[in-house]
Amino acid sequence: MRRLAFAIAAVLACANAQAAPTRIPEQALAQAAQLREQALADDTGWKVVEALTTEVGPRLAGSEADARAVEWAKARFKALGFDKVWTEPVTFPKWERRGERAEVLGAHAQPLSITALGGSPGGSAEGEVVRFDGLDALKAAPAGSLAGKIAFIDYQMSRSRNGMDYGIGGTVRSQGPSEAIRKGAVGYIMRSAGTDSHRVPHTGITHFDEGLTPVPSAALAMPDADQLARLVARGPVRIRMALDCGWDGSYTSQNVIGEITGRELPQEVVVIGGHLDSWDLGTGAIDDAAGVGITMAAGHLIGQLEQAPRRTIRVIAFANEEQGLHGGFAYAAARAKAGEIPLQHIGAESDFGAGRIYAFNTGSGNPDGSREATAQIAQALAPLGIEYRPDEGGPGPDIIPLASKGGAWAWLAQDGTDYFDLHHTADDTLDKIDPKALAQNVAAYTVFAYLAAEAEGGFGSEAKDVVPPQE
Amino acid sequence: MRRLAFAIAAVLACANAQAAPTRIPEQALAQAAQLREQALADDTGWKVVEALTTEVGPRLAGSEADARAVEWAKARFKALGFDKVWTEPVTFPKWERRGERAEVLGAHAQPLSITALGGSPGGSAEGEVVRFDGLDALKAAPAGSLAGKIAFIDYQMSRSRNGMDYGIGGTVRSQGPSEAIRKGAVGYIMRSAGTDSHRVPHTGITHFDEGLTPVPSAALAMPDADQLARLVARGPVRIRMALDCGWDGSYTSQNVIGEITGRELPQEVVVIGGHLDSWDLGTGAIDDAAGVGITMAAGHLIGQLEQAPRRTIRVIAFANEEQGLHGGFAYAAARAKAGEIPLQHIGAESDFGAGRIYAFNTGSGNPDGSREATAQIAQALAPLGIEYRPDEGGPGPDIIPLASKGGAWAWLAQDGTDYFDLHHTADDTLDKIDPKALAQNVAAYTVFAYLAAEAEGGFGSEAKDVVPPQE
Repeated sequence: MRRLAFAIAAVLACANAQAAPTRIPEQALAQAAQLREQALADDTGWKVVEALTTEVGPRLAGSEADARAVEWAKARFKALGFDKVWTEPVTFPKWERRGERAEVLGAHAQPLSITALGGSPGGSAEGEVVRFDGLDALKAAPAGSLAGKIAFIDYQMSRSRNGMDYGIGGTVRSQGPSEAIRKGAVGYIMRSAGTDSHRVPHTGITHFDEGLTPVPSAALAMPDADQLARLVARGPVRIRMALDCGWDGSYTSQNVIGEITGRELPQEVVVIGGHLDSWDLGTGAIDDAAGVGITMAAGHLIGQLEQAPRRTIRVIAFANEEQGLHGGFAYAAARAKAGEIPLQHIGAESDFGAGRIYAFNTGSGNPDGSREATAQIAQALAPLGIEYRPDEGGPGPDIIPLASKGGAWAWLAQDGTDYFDLHHTADDTLDKIDPKALAQNVAAYTVFAYLAAEAEGGFGSEAKDVVPPQE
Repeated sequence: MRRLAFAIAAVLACANAQAAPTRIPEQALAQAAQLREQALADDTGWKVVEALTTEVGPRLAGSEADARAVEWAKARFKALGFDKVWTEPVTFPKWERRGERAEVLGAHAQPLSITALGGSPGGSAEGEVVRFDGLDALKAAPAGSLAGKIAFIDYQMSRSRNGMDYGIGGTVRSQGPSEAIRKGAVGYIMRSAGTDSHRVPHTGITHFDEGLTPVPSAALAMPDADQLARLVARGPVRIRMALDCGWDGSYTSQNVIGEITGRELPQEVVVIGGHLDSWDLGTGAIDDAAGVGITMAAGHLIGQLEQAPRRTIRVIAFANEEQGLHGGFAYAAARAKAGEIPLQHIGAESDFGAGRIYAFNTGSGNPDGSREATAQIAQALAPLGIEYRPDEGGPGPDIIPLASKGGAWAWLAQDGTDYFDLHHTADDTLDKIDPKALAQNVAAYTVFAYLAAEAEGGFGSEAKDVVPPQE
C-alpha cells in the first residue's frame, strides 16, 4: 500500500523535474526569513549536542554506548515534537579497541602516544622504523625492503577552510597499511591525519586489501611523529607497538529517524541529518553530535510552525558513519529497494563540525530546472554570511549512497579550519563548539530544509546510477 | 684545604657587601652588549633542548631515564667546553607511575582522562562524586560528610603572564587530598591546575598530612572536569578510579654541574641553572629542558670569551625539582655545611618555560649596596624588552633553599601566559618552544650572569636564615 502511493508520487516527481523551473514561493521566503532569525536566537541545537556528548559520551559503533545513543535519539526526537519517530536496522562488522601502546626501545627509550586505526588487528609488532614522507615514497620502496620492519608515513596535513588536504591524509590512513604489508612490513604507523600539535592521536578507519594479512596499524600524535622523525634522523630506531583491538562478529544498530510530516506532499522528503556514532576517543562533539544537533534543531523549528511545510522534513541520525557510511548505505538501499529514490526530494548531512557555514549549492546526477530555486535559497541564506557557489560542493558522507542512486543533494559548506585539530581524537569534546556558530548552522539548515520543502518543483532526484562529486 | 680558601674568601665577600656600592665596570657592559647580540643569533640553547627532549625524553626522577639524563648532561657540559664538570648526589624517595584510569559508571558510562598526582598511592576507589568549587568549600564540608565518596575540586585556574593563579591551583593539588581524607573521602580528584582545553591532565606532586591514610588522588583533564561537572549537575554520579602507582624505596640521582672558571675570584660563583628531571607524561621541554638549555648555553657563550669572567659561572642541572626541590635543597645544604653561602655570589634558576623574559630584579635577605649594579644589569637587558622592576620577584624554585640560607638571587621573569597550558602534561614537548623566544632567554641569562660575575662588589649573599619572597 505504502509502496503504491510512493510509486505514484515518484511518477509525479519525475514529471515535475522535466517541467517548468523549480521555484520557491514568495510567502515561503518570507517565512524562511523569520525562521532564520528565530533559529539564530534558539539554543535547541546546543542543548542536543550538550546532552548527547554528556549523557552518552563516546559512542563507538557496536559498543554498549551505541545502543544507548539510539535510545537517546529516539527519546530526543519525541521530546522535540517530531510527528513520527522510528528506527531502521543497520548491520555491520563490530570493531573494538581495548588498549594500545608503543615505545621506542634502546638508548632513547620512551613511550609514544599512538592510537590504533579502526579496523586494525590486535597484536604486537617490534622492529626498526623506516620513515617515508608520503604514500608515494612507500609505494616506491623496493619489494621486500621492509621485511621485519615498521613502516612510518610522516605526512603532515595542512590546514584549510575546506579541509581539502584530508584527501591525502585520509588516503595515507586507508591505503598505507596495505602498501606497507606489500613491502614486507610487520607494522604500520603514520603521523595522524590532522593539523593539531597535541598528544591526542587521530584514529579513523583503515582497510586491508584482499589477500593481505593485516598487521597492527596505528597513528602517532603529532609531537610523537616529530619525535620519531628526529630520532630516525639520528640513526636506526626500534619500536614496539602493542594493540589490543580487533573485529568481533557483527552488530545491528539503527538509523534513528524523526519526521515533521508535510502538508501537501508528505511522501516527498527533505532528508537532513548527522551521524549518531562517534569514534571512541572523544565524545564526538564536532563529529558528529553537532550534525545531529543542527539537523534535529532545524526539524524541530520547522515543526513548530503553525503551518506544516509542504513536503516532509526527515531528520536522520545515521548509524556507523565512521566505519564505512553503514547508515547511509542502509538508508539508500532501503529507498532504492522500495522505489523511493524519486521521493528523496533532496538530502544534506552536516558532518564537518560546527564551524560557520560559508557556501551553499545543490546538485544531482540529473539535468534539472532547480538552479533558480537554489539561487533563491542561497539568497535566503546570504544574511548568514553564506555564499552561493553554483559550481562547487557535493553530498555529505551519508548522503553519498543516496546521491549515487540518483538522489539530489545540498551542500552547506562549514568552515573546517580547526576541524582536523580535533577530528577523531580525544579532544573532540563539547568545549570545542562555539554555540553561536552552531546556531548559525541551525539557521542555515532550517532555512534550506524549509525552502526545499516548500519548492514548486524538484531538485533532480531520479532513480539512476550517478557518481556524485566529492564534497 | 678547599674549605679554608673558601672561608677566607667568605670574609672578604662579606666585607665587600658592607663597603662601597656594587658597580659593573664599563668594559664589562660593552662586552655584555656584544654577548647579547651573539646570543640572539646563537642556537646552542635550542640544540640542548632538542637533544635532551629527544634523546632522553621523559625523565621522571628516580626512573631509568633519570640516570640517562645525568649521563647526557655530563657529556653535554663537556662538549660545550665547560672547564669543570662534576656531579653531586641527591637522594629522595622514588615514586612510580605504571598506569591509571577512571570511568563514570551507570547510565552515562564513559571513560575519564585522569592522571595520578605525584605521591598518590596506587589502588582503586569507587564512589559517588561530590563536587566543590574550591578548597575552601571542601574545608567547609561537615566532618564525615564524604564517607565512602570521592571529593572533586573543580577550580579553574585563570591565565596570566606571571601565572599567579597557580598559587591557588597548586594549593588545590597539594592540600586537597588531605582535606578530602579528613572529611572521609575514599578518593580525590581535581580539575587539573592548568589553563588548556585538551585531554591532557596535569600531574604534579601532592602530599598527605601526617596521621592520615593516603587515598588515590588524581587530576582530570579540563574537558573531563567540564563533563563531570555537567553530569553531577544532572544527579548523583558514581565513578571508579584505578591508579597503579606509588612510592618504592629511595633513589640517588645527581645534580650535574658545569663551570666556567673565574679569572680573579674563581671561588665566588654565579649560579644559574634549570632542573634536569621532568614529569613522565611529556618530554619536559618547557619544564625544564628549556631552563637547562638556556643556562647551559649562557655558560657556554661566556666560556667562549677570550678573557674568562671575573668570577666563576656555575651552571647546575638540578635533580628532582618536581617532587620537592630535592636538587636545590641538596646543593644549598652542601654549601651551608661547607661555609660557602657567602661565595654564592648570586643565583638564578630558569624554570618557567621558554617564554620571553620581560622583567628583572635581584635581591637577598641582606641590606646591601647592589641596587645600582642591578639597575646597570637591567639597562644591559633593556634592549631585549626586559624591564627593571626593583620591588618584584624572588628566587626560582631550586634557588629558594640557597636564598633561605642567605644567598642572593636574581629574577628573570618569563612570560608564562601559555605555561599552564602545558605544565606537567603530555603536551610539554619540543614543538611548544619558540626558538627565538628561547634565544632571547639565553641572551638575558648570558648578559646577567656575565655582568654579575664582573661586578665590583656583591649582591648581599651572607650566611643567615632568610624567608625569601615568592617569585
